[in-house]
Amino acid sequence: MTQYLLARPHTLIPLVTFAERYQSAKSSISEDLAIIKEVFEAEELGLLQTLAGAAGGVRYIPRASRTASQDKITRICRLLEQPDRILPGGYLYMSDLLGQPATLNEIGFMFASAFAERDFDVVMTVETKGIPLAYAAAAYLNVPVVVVRSDNKVTEGSAVSINYVSGSTKRIKTMSLARRALKEQSRVLIIDDFMKAGGTVQGMIDLLREFHAEVAGVGVFVEAGDPETLEQRLVKDYVSLARITEIDPKNRVVRVEPGSYFHGLP
Amino acid sequence: MTQYLLARPHTLIPLVTFAERYQSAKSSISEDLAIIKEVFEAEELGLLQTLAGAAGGVRYIPRASRTASQDKITRICRLLEQPDRILPGGYLYMSDLLGQPATLNEIGFMFASAFAERDFDVVMTVETKGIPLAYAAAAYLNVPVVVVRSDNKVTEGSAVSINYVSGSTKRIKTMSLARRALKEQSRVLIIDDFMKAGGTVQGMIDLLREFHAEVAGVGVFVEAGDPETLEQRLVKDYVSLARITEIDPKNRVVRVEPGSYFHGLP
Repeated sequence: MTQYLLARPHTLIPLVTFAERYQSAKSSISEDLAIIKEVFEAEELGLLQTLAGAAGGVRYIPRASRTASQDKITRICRLLEQPDRILPGGYLYMSDLLGQPATLNEIGFMFASAFAERDFDVVMTVETKGIPLAYAAAAYLNVPVVVVRSDNKVTEGSAVSINYVSGSTKRIKTMSLARRALKEQSRVLIIDDFMKAGGTVQGMIDLLREFHAEVAGVGVFVEAGDPETLEQRLVKDYVSLARITEIDPKNRVVRVEPGSYFHGLP
Repeated sequence: MTQYLLARPHTLIPLVTFAERYQSAKSSISEDLAIIKEVFEAEELGLLQTLAGAAGGVRYIPRASRTASQDKITRICRLLEQPDRILPGGYLYMSDLLGQPATLNEIGFMFASAFAERDFDVVMTVETKGIPLAYAAAAYLNVPVVVVRSDNKVTEGSAVSINYVSGSTKRIKTMSLARRALKEQSRVLIIDDFMKAGGTVQGMIDLLREFHAEVAGVGVFVEAGDPETLEQRLVKDYVSLARITEIDPKNRVVRVEPGSYFHGLP
């Protein structure tokens, strides 16, 4: 039952499903669920919501505690502060971190925790580096992923393209999404790996308008946090896991602190 | 213990780890492992290898049986045969399938099963559509992922670029990989979403030569299987999960059958 619930987050499972699956009375299923609920809380896996009545059942909501997140976020911040990550233009090399399935799993769990209370139909990202993060979050939110292409040579049938201004480089770029990839009125969680001025995220928000879809949340793994960037940022309402407060290529110093996600935890 | 093992595939765990974690004698741990082994086999999750001796322990190898794979592959083939997937040029729209975390999880498990006997240091793919497949396989093989970029505007520090000929369009393209992304002598599993003439996979093989790395396996989700394509294919040694045997845009017919993976199962 634990396994079954963990594999189906954010899904209401009627008690009769378990009763039939394990050939048990509903009363003993309820007793077992009470134990699982305690285990989930003790292991900091999240909540087990019980809904009474005919349309009732049980639902697993992945949600990290502040304590459980602290170690993970701190470890990620220390890794990001390694001086040899500094790239020209105030960027950090992060592909090795984003290549680790275990780290991605932790990040996905934290994104899902940050947005546990909201309902989404889909997670959206733009290629390339946001893709594994979007999938990691989507697995815990139990919704599909839609990937916006950064060219208009899509081999995915008719597509909607928009131009947007990359906030940091001030260059005009194109992003596009296949018409059939997203239903109208979808509630969308936007996920990306890095936000500086916010031009790419703003581009995705504009693209969603073309689909008559709704931005129900924005999550970024790392944000640039220097005062100038913050002031000029196009997007204001978002959750970040980590924030670069200082990057000094000359002296090879990087400072990274936990982002707004961590400060918003109960 | 089940949870612990499932979360760490292809990892040798000394019995003392469990003994300390659960404050139990090694003998009772061994008894529990015997039960878990039976459960893993009954639920078709894979093998539990026990290694005796001082350097011994237990290792979970995800491996699907033929029976368990048959339903999954057949379901995927039927989905791929939906006529509205047909795109110009003999391609199929698959982004919706590759956007489903549960489907990806099944595909990753099958890739990991196909290559369960080989040792890899890393899974490699080229952006964009192969990325989620590579991560899904890597999670079950417990190795990191490296993503080759299809441009040379990488913001990842110094990179190695090669030109390759896309076999189907005969156009010259570029792919590149950050120098620091891959260690020399790495044993690499190449994963991609679609193979027609094999030019992209051949490009990755050539790129790996630049890194003095070794191709230890090639897995593709779907391959084109018409006789002409098969004859001209650049890559011969690979595992496919599904094969398109017929695609007729005029009459809107697609035929998809299980690929070499399925035929190779014990």
